[in-house]
Amino acid sequence: MAPLRVAILAPVSWRVPPRHYGPWEQFASLLAEGLVAKGVDVTLFASADSVTSGRLASVVGRGYSEDPDVEPKVAECLHIAHAFERAGEFDLIHNSFDFLPLTYSGLVETPVLTTIHGFSSPRILPVYQRYNASTAYVAISDADRHPSLDYVATIHHGIDTDAFSLHPSPGGYLLFFGRIHPDKGTAEAIDVAEAAGMPLVIAGIVQDQRYFDERVAPRVDGERVSFVGAVGPEERSELLGGAHSLLHLIGFDEPFGYSVVEGMACGTPVLAFRRGSMGELIEDGTTGFLVDDVEGAVAAVGLAAGLDRVAIRAQAVARFGVARMVADYLEAYAAVV
Amino acid sequence: MAPLRVAILAPVSWRVPPRHYGPWEQFASLLAEGLVAKGVDVTLFASADSVTSGRLASVVGRGYSEDPDVEPKVAECLHIAHAFERAGEFDLIHNSFDFLPLTYSGLVETPVLTTIHGFSSPRILPVYQRYNASTAYVAISDADRHPSLDYVATIHHGIDTDAFSLHPSPGGYLLFFGRIHPDKGTAEAIDVAEAAGMPLVIAGIVQDQRYFDERVAPRVDGERVSFVGAVGPEERSELLGGAHSLLHLIGFDEPFGYSVVEGMACGTPVLAFRRGSMGELIEDGTTGFLVDDVEGAVAAVGLAAGLDRVAIRAQAVARFGVARMVADYLEAYAAVV
Repeated sequence: MAPLRVAILAPVSWRVPPRHYGPWEQFASLLAEGLVAKGVDVTLFASADSVTSGRLASVVGRGYSEDPDVEPKVAECLHIAHAFERAGEFDLIHNSFDFLPLTYSGLVETPVLTTIHGFSSPRILPVYQRYNASTAYVAISDADRHPSLDYVATIHHGIDTDAFSLHPSPGGYLLFFGRIHPDKGTAEAIDVAEAAGMPLVIAGIVQDQRYFDERVAPRVDGERVSFVGAVGPEERSELLGGAHSLLHLIGFDEPFGYSVVEGMACGTPVLAFRRGSMGELIEDGTTGFLVDDVEGAVAAVGLAAGLDRVAIRAQAVARFGVARMVADYLEAYAAVV
Repeated sequence: MAPLRVAILAPVSWRVPPRHYGPWEQFASLLAEGLVAKGVDVTLFASADSVTSGRLASVVGRGYSEDPDVEPKVAECLHIAHAFERAGEFDLIHNSFDFLPLTYSGLVETPVLTTIHGFSSPRILPVYQRYNASTAYVAISDADRHPSLDYVATIHHGIDTDAFSLHPSPGGYLLFFGRIHPDKGTAEAIDVAEAAGMPLVIAGIVQDQRYFDERVAPRVDGERVSFVGAVGPEERSELLGGAHSLLHLIGFDEPFGYSVVEGMACGTPVLAFRRGSMGELIEDGTTGFLVDDVEGAVAAVGLAAGLDRVAIRAQAVARFGVARMVADYLEAYAAVV
């Protein structure tokens, strides 16, 4: 049987895989590589500086978040059109972009499956609703399913668990790992670390400069609270694994959290606010704790050292390995093609 | 012979025709009505509150500039997709939107002709270049032709000259008519009026609030300089015709100027900076004056009263009537279909 021919339409905000930040690009990369390993004929539509063991198809040189000469709207529409103009070459177009590609889907015969990476605003829902009957959707968590849409599956993201190694005993610092933004609860992490009397390391890109300047930077002293900026893939395992616990005190219903499962893959417990997908990712009392407020998080810091870090990693490998994600997507593809 | 079936793809920023401002929507309306009058089977893709004697096709209730609940990017892509998903019903899709619809053109068999209403930035050129060979372009002035693109024609816009009536003698005020923005030279118009010792009336939407606050508002006294805001179609003829001269001291290479030809249709001379399309619209010394600086404009105010306002209107009717535009577009359509 000829291999399945899949076009993966990645965003063109960052390179695939991303150098630092870029969760959608990270997803596209992990999935593409995993599918290639399974014998799928993958064409990755991404910026021209992307790296893949599949075929790379590009009309945009560099991601628009990395190249100020690129007009995002222009890059996006040329990139999407490129994939759809070649639709006849594929058995399936897997859209990992956002809503805009859906509006091209009615003009081609090739089935389109979209991984919905969350709804940035309820105002983008009309596009998903318009193409609900004619295309297929995958949710990245049950928590992120919208009641007005139909889904072929919920598929949690997978990660390359080999890139993260077990740190068998708890380290001496708490860790915040993510975008510096109110959504991610950077200030709450500082509150918890102070109350728990432990140092905090903050890692991530500054996405909300004003929040950083007003709520975070004044409390960074380089000792009790230190800020290390964006952390690339190489240093990630060391930083996550070296932590006592990962604080994930989110201020929104996060549809998935890469750092949550990456931390667990190092054996590090995750202390998270009980909202969004956290209840699906964290087994309360085993791989971390689901808490409701800062006080609950402080109490959980005291309990976290008692968790079995070997078991935490084992569960992360079983539930959030890329192999499981690839198998799930192959099943979803089979339902659509 | 069956009538030609043309889809006109208007923007969805404002209603068609616009209530006040909206030059692209104005173009779409004038063209649609003119084509219907010539027996063309016109389907106008526009917001649902639009008014046309052709067929109206809408998936967006109101223009996104008139309804804060509408997300522009969502409205645009649903609107464009709607037209292209119905491509099989038309002999031609006339794109009067911008560059985004071009990226759907390769997915349908129906020919696409685009009126390029100017280049908001050189960074949008790659889209026009990408679809240069496979679609047809119309320039709205020779001045606006880009050397890297091919055009089927230059077609100056036409207006409903019946909506403007001759004012046979010059009125007592100079007029600025357009968006309040440095591009349009509002501040320069005040300079000229002051130096010429004549009152100035400023009409238009404030597009650059800071420019208005800093450079315009402090000089508005309600007597020598008055600001009347946006002026709807009904009052336009009175205001333009009542002016001594229209000041069009643009700070950019304007590809076309509706107010320039509307003023001329009332017999009002236009004093314009010699750039962009102005040399194509104004016959220097007959329908107005092309000048190079504020001093030149002040001198032209002194000469403008001597121009023949009957001749100015006659030329506007002959060169910029909607009938001429419609005839030109029918010729361009014939070259493409």
